[in-house]
Amino acid sequence: MNPLMKIARDEAGKGVRNNEGGPFGAVISRKGEIIAQGHNEVLKSNDPTAHAEIVTIRRAAEALGRYDLSDCELHTSCEPCPMCLSAIYWSRISSVYYGCTKEDAANIGFDDNAIYEYIRHPEQHQDELKLVPLEREECLQEFREWQDKQDKKMY
Amino acid sequence: MNPLMKIARDEAGKGVRNNEGGPFGAVISRKGEIIAQGHNEVLKSNDPTAHAEIVTIRRAAEALGRYDLSDCELHTSCEPCPMCLSAIYWSRISSVYYGCTKEDAANIGFDDNAIYEYIRHPEQHQDELKLVPLEREECLQEFREWQDKQDKKMY
Repeated sequence: MNPLMKIARDEAGKGVRNNEGGPFGAVISRKGEIIAQGHNEVLKSNDPTAHAEIVTIRRAAEALGRYDLSDCELHTSCEPCPMCLSAIYWSRISSVYYGCTKEDAANIGFDDNAIYEYIRHPEQHQDELKLVPLEREECLQEFREWQDKQDKKMY
Repeated sequence: MNPLMKIARDEAGKGVRNNEGGPFGAVISRKGEIIAQGHNEVLKSNDPTAHAEIVTIRRAAEALGRYDLSDCELHTSCEPCPMCLSAIYWSRISSVYYGCTKEDAANIGFDDNAIYEYIRHPEQHQDELKLVPLEREECLQEFREWQDKQDKKMY
């Protein structure tokens, strides 16, 4: 078995056996060197964002002291959900290797299809999650402050 | 101005002035009572997932001691990116009020259109982020362990 996928899979198993979350694990490496590893901790931490990939990205960013992980790759025991896929995108990781598919995940009760559907057509699913514009003009003030800021760091 | 949107906007301003991240703030409330508030901390924490909504969801979940925030609503100074929208979905928050639009965000350098595009058609954007299946059969072992687990908590 691919050694990085084995680490991701073993992380998944550890999380299940310790009742920390669903069967999902991940590892981030750079040129074959392990930077961070982790598993789903939604049940342990009561944090709905604590998916294996998010946990591992946060640890890798902390370990390297930077938010740009473009020289890293991620191995995950299951195809990332849209939240994790977006987080991977923001972190600039360039390669992701995944074991189980999102269909496999749906088969054991972790279905992210509704999220894909929502992202594609939010207007058709306002009964599930209402998304309402409010006070745009007032909020634009802070955008202008950002634009005018001389010492800002773009990222 | 709507008082909850004002809190979200003021959080955005605080983050900018303290050089903690982009001009984005959020607040989570329940029946008008504030549960948690926060702003983008990507620059402060070097965490690429530390968007205002994620920071605030994590704080609200910690404050309430649960990952299910279905009785809460979120006010955010800007339309959520796909990562945050998915996190909101996983947290089961049912209503989101947002100030600036994603087009406004793109205009000041925070463009999430590529992520929407990737989520819709990953096969067309493998040059940006390579997504490769690997070792599915081996990884399915942990899914079976989860299925067979007698004391598991579904979430």
